[in-house]
Amino acid sequence: MSPIHPAWLPQTALAPLGRLVVRLTGDGALVETIATELRRATAAHGGRLVRGTPRGADPEPDVTFTSSTAAGDRADLGAEGFRVVRHRERLTVTAATGDGLLQGFFHVVRLGHDPHRGEDVAVVHRPAHPLRMLDHWDNVESHPVMGQVERGYAGGSLFYADGSVREDLSRVGEYARLLASVGVNRVAINNVNVHRTESRLLTDGLPDVARIAAQFRPWRIRVHLSVNFNSPVALGGLATSDPLAPAVQQWWRDAAARVYQEIPDFGGFVVKADSEGQPGPFGYGRDHADGANLLARAVAPHGGVVFWRAFVYNHTQDWRDRSTDRARAAYDHFAGLDGRFDDNVVVQVKNGPIDFQPREPVSPLFAAMPRTSLAVELQVTQEYTGQQRHAVYLGPQWGEVLQFPLTPRASVSGLVSGVVGVSNVGDDPFWTGHPLAQANLYAFGRLAWEPALDPTAVLQEWIVLTFGDDPQVGAVVHGILDESWLVYESYTAPLGVGFMVRPGGHYGPDVDGYEYTPWGTYHFADRDGIGVDRTMATGTGYTGQYPEPWRSTYESLADCPDEVLLFFHHVPYGHVLRSGKTVIQHIYDSHFAGVEAVAKMVAAWESLSGRIDQPVFERGRERFAEQLRSATEWRDQVNTYFFRKSGIPDSAGRTIF
Amino acid sequence: MSPIHPAWLPQTALAPLGRLVVRLTGDGALVETIATELRRATAAHGGRLVRGTPRGADPEPDVTFTSSTAAGDRADLGAEGFRVVRHRERLTVTAATGDGLLQGFFHVVRLGHDPHRGEDVAVVHRPAHPLRMLDHWDNVESHPVMGQVERGYAGGSLFYADGSVREDLSRVGEYARLLASVGVNRVAINNVNVHRTESRLLTDGLPDVARIAAQFRPWRIRVHLSVNFNSPVALGGLATSDPLAPAVQQWWRDAAARVYQEIPDFGGFVVKADSEGQPGPFGYGRDHADGANLLARAVAPHGGVVFWRAFVYNHTQDWRDRSTDRARAAYDHFAGLDGRFDDNVVVQVKNGPIDFQPREPVSPLFAAMPRTSLAVELQVTQEYTGQQRHAVYLGPQWGEVLQFPLTPRASVSGLVSGVVGVSNVGDDPFWTGHPLAQANLYAFGRLAWEPALDPTAVLQEWIVLTFGDDPQVGAVVHGILDESWLVYESYTAPLGVGFMVRPGGHYGPDVDGYEYTPWGTYHFADRDGIGVDRTMATGTGYTGQYPEPWRSTYESLADCPDEVLLFFHHVPYGHVLRSGKTVIQHIYDSHFAGVEAVAKMVAAWESLSGRIDQPVFERGRERFAEQLRSATEWRDQVNTYFFRKSGIPDSAGRTIF
Repeated sequence: MSPIHPAWLPQTALAPLGRLVVRLTGDGALVETIATELRRATAAHGGRLVRGTPRGADPEPDVTFTSSTAAGDRADLGAEGFRVVRHRERLTVTAATGDGLLQGFFHVVRLGHDPHRGEDVAVVHRPAHPLRMLDHWDNVESHPVMGQVERGYAGGSLFYADGSVREDLSRVGEYARLLASVGVNRVAINNVNVHRTESRLLTDGLPDVARIAAQFRPWRIRVHLSVNFNSPVALGGLATSDPLAPAVQQWWRDAAARVYQEIPDFGGFVVKADSEGQPGPFGYGRDHADGANLLARAVAPHGGVVFWRAFVYNHTQDWRDRSTDRARAAYDHFAGLDGRFDDNVVVQVKNGPIDFQPREPVSPLFAAMPRTSLAVELQVTQEYTGQQRHAVYLGPQWGEVLQFPLTPRASVSGLVSGVVGVSNVGDDPFWTGHPLAQANLYAFGRLAWEPALDPTAVLQEWIVLTFGDDPQVGAVVHGILDESWLVYESYTAPLGVGFMVRPGGHYGPDVDGYEYTPWGTYHFADRDGIGVDRTMATGTGYTGQYPEPWRSTYESLADCPDEVLLFFHHVPYGHVLRSGKTVIQHIYDSHFAGVEAVAKMVAAWESLSGRIDQPVFERGRERFAEQLRSATEWRDQVNTYFFRKSGIPDSAGRTIF
Repeated sequence: MSPIHPAWLPQTALAPLGRLVVRLTGDGALVETIATELRRATAAHGGRLVRGTPRGADPEPDVTFTSSTAAGDRADLGAEGFRVVRHRERLTVTAATGDGLLQGFFHVVRLGHDPHRGEDVAVVHRPAHPLRMLDHWDNVESHPVMGQVERGYAGGSLFYADGSVREDLSRVGEYARLLASVGVNRVAINNVNVHRTESRLLTDGLPDVARIAAQFRPWRIRVHLSVNFNSPVALGGLATSDPLAPAVQQWWRDAAARVYQEIPDFGGFVVKADSEGQPGPFGYGRDHADGANLLARAVAPHGGVVFWRAFVYNHTQDWRDRSTDRARAAYDHFAGLDGRFDDNVVVQVKNGPIDFQPREPVSPLFAAMPRTSLAVELQVTQEYTGQQRHAVYLGPQWGEVLQFPLTPRASVSGLVSGVVGVSNVGDDPFWTGHPLAQANLYAFGRLAWEPALDPTAVLQEWIVLTFGDDPQVGAVVHGILDESWLVYESYTAPLGVGFMVRPGGHYGPDVDGYEYTPWGTYHFADRDGIGVDRTMATGTGYTGQYPEPWRSTYESLADCPDEVLLFFHHVPYGHVLRSGKTVIQHIYDSHFAGVEAVAKMVAAWESLSGRIDQPVFERGRERFAEQLRSATEWRDQVNTYFFRKSGIPDSAGRTIF
């Protein structure tokens, strides 16, 4: 068993604060959590912790964490905010709640060396979204196809092993600390595909769920369960799970009451219904508002929230049928239900209309449900972005999504009340398989809290906390990660067309892999051209789901941005992009350039030998070798496929097979 | 649990003989097996069994089975042959051995009604090949990917369940009877991919193997084990498995001696070495003759035989590398070793040079090893021919292979001393999934015994034994099965190109599924044409492995038979076939025709409702529905793929997507 990597909170990350005199006021469980952190840090590094009101003998504190009970502060700072004031080299962090103070504490950790020194400042930090959640697609019982963690690339589950909840959950506590340090405040602990064993977490498994919740509680992270919509039948022995049946409603109320009796701060439920084979309200002739409200009313008396996924589409589509468009599905199913959902329902919408591809336009559904609480769902686990064998920093993708000006008045971030990520951790010693994938977990939390942050600046925070402030290490890691998402995009599926991956596992290229399947994910490449016509004029009409200006922008072949061109239009290979290149030459150029960029990453990583921890270096080296192999495979397969189909040679005469 | 279908030996099949007066002479275990059969049949149907020399009171027998000890008979009839004489409505079957008499007994069963009546005849039957074997790819422990039976489409294993040998092996005895009735005389009882648990059959598992052998013994079927070449290391704790190391040789001698102590009539070993990840002599710098002789010398003192598979190729080929040709591999690895193998080694060669595709040319290796015992390996289990969901009678394929005049003087059958089939049975109530797939098991045995038999006549034997002699049933089953192999070929991969199947499972179409993989199975379709150039002039030179006239025939684009054209040549879509059609129009026409033929099969099967056993009818109906669905999918995907690539419309204007 390798030692567990400390991620971005090694002892050294707490050292700057640990060298100072720090005062902490207030009480309650979270204040004690902070006190424990400070006690350990000051003991290790020579500083001093002073609790409560200062006495004459106490030294003047460099940093003060204050719990305020002032009504003004409560109004100003809210449930999770904090104020940071630096004045004459004294730093004071004030919060009206333990949550806020805990966030303020980690803010100071991020400030690094001598946080109390520097210019005077007075600034208030509040999260952009109250709901910042990580969903775990972990199975209690390892699934014959999907394994212990569905779409997990970091070993087994932190929660489950050998078919049950782990006895020793101490690593969950470590994980909770990492999540709290970046502002995550909810987790769902089991897969949205709820199999038989997992469904029983809601009943027989409650004592085990309570043990998991106990690990998250010191860090004010609420635990959610993914539940099976058919539970009243499967677990309760009822004849129906019809959401309008009083017995079904009673069953869910009773079930919720039992959960809250064991876990008073339980977060609520997550539901994937009528999707990819999961049961749902359609089975009873009801709609998704009926379904979601059923569960919402069961948890409402206890302050619970139901996350109801909008990922509903026909997964048994006939590839011959060009009138059905999977991109339309979430909007078609949900937009008409706006206003019908209870207040404690959050409709959880994937960032794009299909499924976590490296590049998709943002889902138009975010603009279509003004009377509904929405959350944007991002995929931290790199299912379609290299599976934590490729170094891909997703912060820039998420920044673009969250800040995308979907309506003239609001960004996606402004239209949602929550950000949900599918977690990328497992019981791997590095947490995330590729050590650099830790940056995605970090950035997810930071961007969920404040989407306006510069993803490169967030990465810099992560680098300094994780590796220390060796500028050469910083330069190398930035050099590798800053553009890594675009590099990955460049050597995989071109121009937003998506899904040229091996079916099932979703790793590596297979240009036609999904072309004749029931999954609704096609590129329609023929000898003349490629792309999906989703226009109103001649295609599936998907562009009509967008508000202006996007409806017109995407509809227009001339105005459509290059990076999503093939998502919206079917064009000849000779079509000239806004970049000035033809589509086919863009495919060739981007794929050759992508592999060259990866080769540079490999060389850059090698330069870190001896400058970073050897196990991290070795794991990274192994991953970069695979990334280079895989990127080369992508390049050659994609280029060969399109050369064979188009017959158009590369203008630069490079090798295509 | 459904009742087990009796396959081609229902009570009714024995009734004609059971009504007669039958005399049986001789003794020994096999004569007792025949006596048991006759006693049961005559008891059920009113006939009479007379044992030994006739006494005055005995009635004159209609049929006599005689064990002859005459030296002339032994020389004439051999170890397994028998003579059938009909004279004045008395039928006499004479054999020099129990094996021969058992075969003669089933010959009379096949004669049907009143076998003693009809013209006078005197004919000797001897098997064309002494080795007629079925290989089972059964795993003791269900494999996480491949399941209980690798490439099995008929449920679980007859031998194993829940990780060990079944307690109740009575169904194995029933199976042995079926095999004996068609002349099979050897079985290998475990998968050629020998995993950890399976490797121990050779040691700890011997008592269980002996129990299985006891089920086969009354039917004179010898049991073989597939063994792991690395056993001396894995099981014996040696430091090497080098075939030239004396300790390794001793280990195998000891292992063989232990096996023969438990099972005196043990057949020998089957080995897949240096193939698809299995260990072999290459690991020690030795060649396949060294490896095979090592095992052969261990079993030689006991009369054992080693079947050594020639299925050796590079399964991590780079698809970019057009100089490597998997079709060449068996010949390249083995032809040079001719003369180096011990007498009790049989080199087992797949019928074609790749892997059991619906259509391949025969392997040129059969003509390249005149000083080596060879066996031809056929695939009874329908891995690439519809997986026992499609009705595909393979008798005509095997007939073509066995009778193929590979050299000016000899057919494939004439060049080999054995025929091996990969079994298609499992614990399915119908034995083979699709009830009509029983015909393949039947035909395998009959054609292994006598390759010159007309496959349609063999099918007729099977129909009458299985369904009785209702002429309408016979006409329908012939109508479905006679051409079914060609029908399957017509709607799948065209003109011998092969491998347009879904990777992994090998069911259903995926035209590019293997095109960019390491498996060496490519079609090289581009916008202009398709096929693999295997000529000496401009291709991989594979045609040069054939003796004349085939070398020249296959080399010549004009002379190459249509059905293997794309196996040997890369041609434009407009190339005109010997049939007069262009390649592209052939693709369209054959795929449309194939589905039409399946639709007729469905209708024909429906006409049997009420005329055959209801469970057989229902199972068949379910399979035919799937065949029609799947054939339609093949048609549409293949036609669409080639239309998109070639841009050439169907001359008949039918729907392509």
